[in-house]
Amino acid sequence: MSRSITVLAPATVANVVCGFDVLGFALATPTDTMHLRLTDTPGVSIINEDDYNLPTEPTRNVAGAALLALLREAPAGTGIEVRIQKNIKPGSGIGSSAASAAGAVVGANELLGNPFSQEDLVRFAMFGEEVASGVQHADNIAPAIYGGVTLIRATEPRLDIVPLPAPELHVTVVHPQIEIKTSDARQILKKEVLLKDAIRQWGNVGGLVAGLLKSDYDLIGRSLEDVIIEPVRSILIPGFAAVKEQSRLAGALGGGISGSGPSIFMLSRTEETAQAVARAMQQIYQDLGIDFHTYVTRISPGGVRVVPTEQLHAHAVL
Amino acid sequence: MSRSITVLAPATVANVVCGFDVLGFALATPTDTMHLRLTDTPGVSIINEDDYNLPTEPTRNVAGAALLALLREAPAGTGIEVRIQKNIKPGSGIGSSAASAAGAVVGANELLGNPFSQEDLVRFAMFGEEVASGVQHADNIAPAIYGGVTLIRATEPRLDIVPLPAPELHVTVVHPQIEIKTSDARQILKKEVLLKDAIRQWGNVGGLVAGLLKSDYDLIGRSLEDVIIEPVRSILIPGFAAVKEQSRLAGALGGGISGSGPSIFMLSRTEETAQAVARAMQQIYQDLGIDFHTYVTRISPGGVRVVPTEQLHAHAVL
Repeated sequence: MSRSITVLAPATVANVVCGFDVLGFALATPTDTMHLRLTDTPGVSIINEDDYNLPTEPTRNVAGAALLALLREAPAGTGIEVRIQKNIKPGSGIGSSAASAAGAVVGANELLGNPFSQEDLVRFAMFGEEVASGVQHADNIAPAIYGGVTLIRATEPRLDIVPLPAPELHVTVVHPQIEIKTSDARQILKKEVLLKDAIRQWGNVGGLVAGLLKSDYDLIGRSLEDVIIEPVRSILIPGFAAVKEQSRLAGALGGGISGSGPSIFMLSRTEETAQAVARAMQQIYQDLGIDFHTYVTRISPGGVRVVPTEQLHAHAVL
Repeated sequence: MSRSITVLAPATVANVVCGFDVLGFALATPTDTMHLRLTDTPGVSIINEDDYNLPTEPTRNVAGAALLALLREAPAGTGIEVRIQKNIKPGSGIGSSAASAAGAVVGANELLGNPFSQEDLVRFAMFGEEVASGVQHADNIAPAIYGGVTLIRATEPRLDIVPLPAPELHVTVVHPQIEIKTSDARQILKKEVLLKDAIRQWGNVGGLVAGLLKSDYDLIGRSLEDVIIEPVRSILIPGFAAVKEQSRLAGALGGGISGSGPSIFMLSRTEETAQAVARAMQQIYQDLGIDFHTYVTRISPGGVRVVPTEQLHAHAVL
């Protein structure tokens, strides 16, 4: 048990195509770097080491709210300071706020000698998501903490998180630099859907889960279809249809909107294909004249990672 | 390749709780016994060896319509006679028509030297279902042919059937002797559902598929929840709520309406529990004064079974 620690908190993709509100996965990169230490001052203090101008008042900061939730169940008088180097751009749709919240509680748990379960940590981190979006959702938090692909089977009467074994999958993400507010993306959804569309969707969810557990890439590809959310939300993302079409032509299994956008992700069987997909995406946004960033990475089997001391020193040298 | 053959065609459960229209499984018992033989008279002839007074005109008979579909792709001049001993009561909700259709096409395929794939056979048998219910659905046909648990991921642009490996599961079925027409059961469903209910449902579909593939009985049990169809349809089945409650108390993992009812099925981990569930069901319908039949069986890994000659003779002796 040390007094200070560094964690790497991964970006995550939620609302995985047909799996709106239930399926998510962790990315190997990008990650936020967070340094946490125990202090003699009870409570939480936040230091932002980036240019995003995020709040430092703990109740208004994503990591802060998550830590305050954890401290309510920790020994009285515990004090934690966290320094955050954000590499995952807020508002990009790849779980920036979830990374901060998940990294904070995993780091704090490690500092305290791991008294809390993964489910506890998800529960704490969800208070961070509430600060970011007004809703306590676990779609990004669960994969950020568990790693790999996670299914949120249900949220009531209690949160039921199901880790799903998955074969090697490479991910290409494009983040067109436009702003979509999560609240706006929620508002354009209809409260009611056609039963026949819902049936098609849960057929695909069943297919996707089976494809992952059976390592059946073709089935994964066929199941990456969303007949409910994507037709509505994709109109908010310029170039969406072209990205989808060109990515499939480049060999991607399929993909869709990451979270509530504007990022779009595509899954591929090999890194080579994932690179070809990135080139196709780049061409589209260059042609549209929209600034963008692409990532070529893979689904990470692990979630928030505590960096060993040696690696820490290597980091410090860099 | 012989000129005559006997097949056992299994009962099936469709609309498996949350998996409305997409999940089904085959039962080890009851089965219909069907004798098929090649004849020199082109076309199909049907002989019913039971008291159900089903049509013998091939276009109006479930097995007949399925065989006519198969014959359209078989060598010209092929003639098939089928004698049907129905043990699965029509209208019980455990795939009586699907058994006849599936048994007929599997038997014919065997007689012809197996020129057709399982997907072909499902496609032919669906013409039988159309005769029975007016709709070409594969929910019962797929498990009757493939065996085990099957997922119909999608029906368009082409039928996509996913066999799902499952752990040992025991099944208790109660058939209260009341009539529910499939068309009535369809009509009382709303065309639209709440998005939040649909999300809950596809979370459960994901959980159930994962539970089956991971042999996680607790997860299977938690996922056996239907927030969309059951609340509407269960009002057509007297005693439904009591059956569900008492079955869980007797140790069942969970269950629900079989097909469009009136049968109710429950899954259990052991045969002992499945027997206890049957006793609970019997008590309820005795108290209600409704005639009923119960089956204690298990999910059958196989579908329609071609009976070997030795077994045939043993049958003949019985």
